[in-house]
Amino acid sequence: MPALDSRMIDLPTFDDIVAAEGRLLSRVLRTPVLHSPRFDARVGRRVLFKCENLQHVGAFKLRGATNALLQLEASSKVVATHSSGNHGAALARAARELGWRCVVVAPRDASAVKLQSIRAEGAELVSCEPGLVAREAALAEVVARTGAAVVHPFDDAHVIAGQGTAALELLSEYPDLDVLTAPVGGGGLLSGTAIAGKAMVPTCRVIGVEPEMADDAARSFHGGKRVGVQGSPATIADGLRGSIGVRPFAIFRTLVDDVLTVSESAIVSAMRVALEDLRLLIEPSSAVPIAALIDGRIGKPGEKIGVIVSGGNVDLSVCPFLAGRAPLNA
Amino acid sequence: MPALDSRMIDLPTFDDIVAAEGRLLSRVLRTPVLHSPRFDARVGRRVLFKCENLQHVGAFKLRGATNALLQLEASSKVVATHSSGNHGAALARAARELGWRCVVVAPRDASAVKLQSIRAEGAELVSCEPGLVAREAALAEVVARTGAAVVHPFDDAHVIAGQGTAALELLSEYPDLDVLTAPVGGGGLLSGTAIAGKAMVPTCRVIGVEPEMADDAARSFHGGKRVGVQGSPATIADGLRGSIGVRPFAIFRTLVDDVLTVSESAIVSAMRVALEDLRLLIEPSSAVPIAALIDGRIGKPGEKIGVIVSGGNVDLSVCPFLAGRAPLNA
Repeated sequence: MPALDSRMIDLPTFDDIVAAEGRLLSRVLRTPVLHSPRFDARVGRRVLFKCENLQHVGAFKLRGATNALLQLEASSKVVATHSSGNHGAALARAARELGWRCVVVAPRDASAVKLQSIRAEGAELVSCEPGLVAREAALAEVVARTGAAVVHPFDDAHVIAGQGTAALELLSEYPDLDVLTAPVGGGGLLSGTAIAGKAMVPTCRVIGVEPEMADDAARSFHGGKRVGVQGSPATIADGLRGSIGVRPFAIFRTLVDDVLTVSESAIVSAMRVALEDLRLLIEPSSAVPIAALIDGRIGKPGEKIGVIVSGGNVDLSVCPFLAGRAPLNA
Repeated sequence: MPALDSRMIDLPTFDDIVAAEGRLLSRVLRTPVLHSPRFDARVGRRVLFKCENLQHVGAFKLRGATNALLQLEASSKVVATHSSGNHGAALARAARELGWRCVVVAPRDASAVKLQSIRAEGAELVSCEPGLVAREAALAEVVARTGAAVVHPFDDAHVIAGQGTAALELLSEYPDLDVLTAPVGGGGLLSGTAIAGKAMVPTCRVIGVEPEMADDAARSFHGGKRVGVQGSPATIADGLRGSIGVRPFAIFRTLVDDVLTVSESAIVSAMRVALEDLRLLIEPSSAVPIAALIDGRIGKPGEKIGVIVSGGNVDLSVCPFLAGRAPLNA
């Protein structure tokens, strides 16, 4: 594969991730790493789960958003983004902590619990049609109106460096991982994970997983040419409906070993397995790499696998196996 | 209240808990302490959750069982107990780790997932009728047959000292708690919690909570005389169906500030709140103090509350709001 040409686009380095870690200290949680003997027995591997579902705002996204905002200069002190949910809530929280105003453009089909979270963090919410074109148009309108600086959810070197701090923390506790895996939407998390992983443990394989219904990263990776999804795929993994970004794709080509896809039913099953074996509620996007693990498609028997559990923001009222029931005394 | 007379029965001291912590190092997990801004906003207090649901075997019980077994002398190298589940699995695991044979007497109405866990940890399972009388009779038969030493689930000084290590860990991270709370079944967890709590932070109030349907500890505490439950109450909190022990009652009288009760519907609601706000699956017993917190009955607004989340072993197929559905592709 060709070497990255960092003169063409700004790509983060491992040093940027190390710097991000210092910058984020006391601003993000050092999330726990959990494991489950029952899950290990189920998959025949030793699996370490880096629990970003237990991060502030319930997602790794706080890392990238905070790292980006801390390096942003804008006299307006207004920041804006488009997001299906977690990045929006993360940027809203980072803005609130740092004294910025925040506007989030979110597609109509975003998870209700995520929209609620964006509002709860104090951001102004602007609704738009699903799909990248509509999202970018709505964001441009916000920028024109407010003079906001924009923090892109994944195609941003500072954001990618921030996301890489989760893998950095995981590998600093477990430096002997054979494989690192994470879900792929826009590719920011897996890019940062790959940069940290290959720098800290060169023998560690880095594997991304995405829904079959939004398989643009797999097609891009295997085809050698970046392709996007059409519109907004209806996968239950609402965080992974977007297309892979330019910077993530460039990083994938040199540092990622494989990109796999899984079915919708496998995603739902994996959510339930996580609840049963790990006692953790994870969002569908987080279940994507776990589904591939359960299918025996990540690592070899006996190997040590690190999984970045990306988030835990599940709308209980629409979760398939929660059946939408209200509590008894509500 | 009268001072404890430790000449009459062997009661653990704070030094015993400190010694237990040293003994348990590397044998039990130092579980994470989590908090949720959403939950804090819900209850108007700052709440720290000590997550023993993420402990090995999914419950704090591993602490007491391991501490007891490490101090047990029996040439038979057989250990036995009666348990509705978590203590049995914990003792089974401790026995396996230390090279003992283990026999667990469990009532027919124990949670299926807990019985499965006892077997998975390698113990021999003996079934009996529900209720303390039947459990003790079956255990006596096992002892006569095998020469086993017995580790009682809660009425044992070493077990209580072990359980106290969870509060010790929590207070060593958060030494400024106003209140510590935990569920009450036999009272072993709250006893150990109270000894650690009052020794480390004398101003900290210690509050136990139990199901209305199994309110023997509340009646004992407020009446000043130990009374038991009749038979096996059908509360969903399967870990709290037993009666308060002699040693726990003696400790409650000097070190516990209050014992509250909550309804069944409040318990189920609190489980769902934990799933939604904390992204944690907790067992009904663990939801009991959380239910009292949600009702505003623990601590004052703005206070800092520590909760020992006792366990996470939930039978997904019978969980009320999980509706018993199997995964889509199972």
